Amino acid sequence: MTTMDLNSDLGESFGAWRMGDDEAILRVVTSANVACGFHAGDPAGILATVRAAVAQGVTIGAHVAYPDLVGFGRRNMDVTSAELQADVMYQIGALQGLATAAGTRVRYVKPHGALYNTIAHDERQAKAVIAAVRAVDPTLVLVALAGAPLVQWARDAGLTVVGEAFADRAYTPEGTLVSRREKGAVLHDATLVAQRMLRLVREGVVEAIDGSLARIDAQSICVHGDSAGAVEMAQAVRAALEQDGVVLRSFVDPA
Amino acid sequence: MTTMDLNSDLGESFGAWRMGDDEAILRVVTSANVACGFHAGDPAGILATVRAAVAQGVTIGAHVAYPDLVGFGRRNMDVTSAELQADVMYQIGALQGLATAAGTRVRYVKPHGALYNTIAHDERQAKAVIAAVRAVDPTLVLVALAGAPLVQWARDAGLTVVGEAFADRAYTPEGTLVSRREKGAVLHDATLVAQRMLRLVREGVVEAIDGSLARIDAQSICVHGDSAGAVEMAQAVRAALEQDGVVLRSFVDPA
Amino acid sequence: MTTMDLNSDLGESFGAWRMGDDEAILRVVTSANVACGFHAGDPAGILATVRAAVAQGVTIGAHVAYPDLVGFGRRNMDVTSAELQADVMYQIGALQGLATAAGTRVRYVKPHGALYNTIAHDERQAKAVIAAVRAVDPTLVLVALAGAPLVQWARDAGLTVVGEAFADRAYTPEGTLVSRREKGAVLHDATLVAQRMLRLVREGVVEAIDGSLARIDAQSICVHGDSAGAVEMAQAVRAALEQDGVVLRSFVDPA
Amino acid sequence: MTTMDLNSDLGESFGAWRMGDDEAILRVVTSANVACGFHAGDPAGILATVRAAVAQGVTIGAHVAYPDLVGFGRRNMDVTSAELQADVMYQIGALQGLATAAGTRVRYVKPHGALYNTIAHDERQAKAVIAAVRAVDPTLVLVALAGAPLVQWARDAGLTVVGEAFADRAYTPEGTLVSRREKGAVLHDATLVAQRMLRLVREGVVEAIDGSLARIDAQSICVHGDSAGAVEMAQAVRAALEQDGVVLRSFVDPA
Repeated sequence: MTTMDLNSDLGESFGAWRMGDDEAILRVVTSANVACGFHAGDPAGILATVRAAVAQGVTIGAHVAYPDLVGFGRRNMDVTSAELQADVMYQIGALQGLATAAGTRVRYVKPHGALYNTIAHDERQAKAVIAAVRAVDPTLVLVALAGAPLVQWARDAGLTVVGEAFADRAYTPEGTLVSRREKGAVLHDATLVAQRMLRLVREGVVEAIDGSLARIDAQSICVHGDSAGAVEMAQAVRAALEQDGVVLRSFVDPA
Repeated sequence: MTTMDLNSDLGESFGAWRMGDDEAILRVVTSANVACGFHAGDPAGILATVRAAVAQGVTIGAHVAYPDLVGFGRRNMDVTSAELQADVMYQIGALQGLATAAGTRVRYVKPHGALYNTIAHDERQAKAVIAAVRAVDPTLVLVALAGAPLVQWARDAGLTVVGEAFADRAYTPEGTLVSRREKGAVLHDATLVAQRMLRLVREGVVEAIDGSLARIDAQSICVHGDSAGAVEMAQAVRAALEQDGVVLRSFVDPA
Repeated sequence: MTTMDLNSDLGESFGAWRMGDDEAILRVVTSANVACGFHAGDPAGILATVRAAVAQGVTIGAHVAYPDLVGFGRRNMDVTSAELQADVMYQIGALQGLATAAGTRVRYVKPHGALYNTIAHDERQAKAVIAAVRAVDPTLVLVALAGAPLVQWARDAGLTVVGEAFADRAYTPEGTLVSRREKGAVLHDATLVAQRMLRLVREGVVEAIDGSLARIDAQSICVHGDSAGAVEMAQAVRAALEQDGVVLRSFVDPA
Repeated sequence: MTTMDLNSDLGESFGAWRMGDDEAILRVVTSANVACGFHAGDPAGILATVRAAVAQGVTIGAHVAYPDLVGFGRRNMDVTSAELQADVMYQIGALQGLATAAGTRVRYVKPHGALYNTIAHDERQAKAVIAAVRAVDPTLVLVALAGAPLVQWARDAGLTVVGEAFADRAYTPEGTLVSRREKGAVLHDATLVAQRMLRLVREGVVEAIDGSLARIDAQSICVHGDSAGAVEMAQAVRAALEQDGVVLRSFVDPA
């Protein structure tokens, strides 16, 4: 029996501002990367999202980020290791507080935005994040870009790591993401995306931007819920996998 | 054997800004009310304070506040119950994350500033805080103004409550604090303050502003560390109690 | 020739979060209350809104607020007069900087949310706002709730004041707003609302919630742009006034 | 008659947190770089500093920064040009609002911290800052690191630029600052520093770290006021210049 996890970013509303359709995407995914207040998410909104995830049996992860609300955590910041380490501990703990109140637990950590991209290859910042995760709870799983150096650094440090693929992104022949600045980097055809992800699950490969096959070691697929089109694409991926007999299940149980 | 707890506010620096002498006051108190980032405290600074508390064997509490950094949590805010509840859960959890990383646990909650004063008598906000504490960890102790309605509300809800007295404040004959707006509300003579606190511990009373005796049901005494004079006063209180054979010990063990 | 101003809240997006359809509402209104960063609005977003207003010939006002981003400026805060005064000066200046860069000027001030409601009747906070406006630019017009004590306080201090009516709100027989907590406080029928506003312009009255006529001394009508339905209602109000020969024009020229 | 300007960073307190002795340093300097709220400074505190500067006849400049309060604007941030441009406009405007209320004007702009260092050589960010300054007020002077590429970029764009030297920093033979990470980068001997600055004013050179003479084209000298020792050093620099007949005067009149 083949299983696969679908993850998505949730809890990204902030105060009066809405972002994403958490209710809709929670019916599709098996893991929810929940904002922790540094790039998005206010406590009351995060709590509502966590409660909705519990109601759907979805596993909760901490979507930790740089402290940059106005930049939505998408801007690189030259933080010190001590700052980053404490920032990550704080965010995991904050979400854990809300998760406990909602009757569940934080089971994994997925860095967000610029932090995600930076620690994929920046060893100093990567090690700060790894140390933070281990210090708060060494059983937390780390979700990282499949194939990135971070995967090995975190495993060497004793963490369980889940590599992830991005459903709507083009890949290079080496199995890395095509930069968003390049043409064709983002895929928009839900049917095509669904078929690519099915092939990834069944064969461990995606067709790269040059037509060759790239091997991707992914135990989770990231989908989006921030627009109606995004939710539909996520649904298409789930449907294609289910129709082929793949069992959708998080890489770790909710609580 | 009589015991008493001394508590003080710590971790109130923020980024480049220093506040208080945490190292000095940690040698005096037995419980540390640690800022959680809403009125003061950045994660790296909070972590340093928590580690210093661990080194001194001091019990850690979450000093939760309204989200008002520029106002230092001293301004009343008309927050909804849902907002307040989630804000408190978030702050306790955040500190718990840092405490876990430092090898200790958060054992109590003491609201800060305007929130402290408001929930002493405002039942709606009080119940939001009580519900938040219970939902995150019902074994957390709540530190509250001795004699305030909050004490009973929290006990009725099943929380352990510690009433606290303020070493440097004048009391009314009814055992409530003289408002800071009134003359004589704040005491500055360390020797006098120390003698008052010794009497409180031994006899359960303080001399009120009119010369009568006010009964105060306090299991903890709040001292300050935000100036050299404040630290000296705290030391004087501790010395007076110790010389009289009172054992200084937190109302709950560190971890 | 009768003229009337239509005003609306704009620039209320923040970073990655969108709010309102500024482009659409700018084709309807003659005055734009632009967020200044304290309850909403990041500098780049505010600048884009100001530029769009310039392109439409719409007058710019500073929509000043309490410093409460997560609460969207909707929560009462017990700020000191000195804090409030400086906060208002800062916000007007910030918007003036962006307006200058966009080739226009800030011509009026309209307080937002909880601050709007509070200073309508709270003399201490009202006088802090009035003093701030006068100190930055005494030619700035103050937009205030028609009939509120604030109107007279500000006129007594030498400010030009524009009273405003709310298109979608029910009125008491005394000409004050029916509280949002009461049934029928918010009107949803665009045609009805448009007819009410036409009557207000022509006769100076609106039908109160008890069927009597309430006199409202308004030189501006507030409409909303934060939903498709709101924009349609604003368009209906504008169309009804124009068809009756009312000239839509701001109470003060753009620059 | 030789004149020289002394500038220092002021208004860097934030809410309940104090930083620097603004009153003391205002008796020494002729130009005040006033924080604008992005790295430090709350409106009420900024206003107090501006008023104190007015009382001393000191010229006011906008000390603009990245939006990073917890990092005190000292961390590099990968902001877009549009964000940076609007952030700078907003900050200049905000300070202008407070300055107007205090009866003065903002006469110059000096970027702070990481922004200062980055735009000294990063052309993209430099041009965003230059464009912002010109759009708000093309008569504003830009204070920049003497000898940096920024000086020429800004002059080419039509701005008046003042090069500045740092009193307490060691220089390379090429006239650039020795990195703070290197030994000897920061000077602590007030008498030595004062003599170096006198030589700079009289001969246009400082002795570099290798003993050679480095030519520095500076019209302003930066001194600090964030500690008692810093204020004393600033006083020593001023005294040495005055005793030698140098007239201390800002590069631009206060208002």
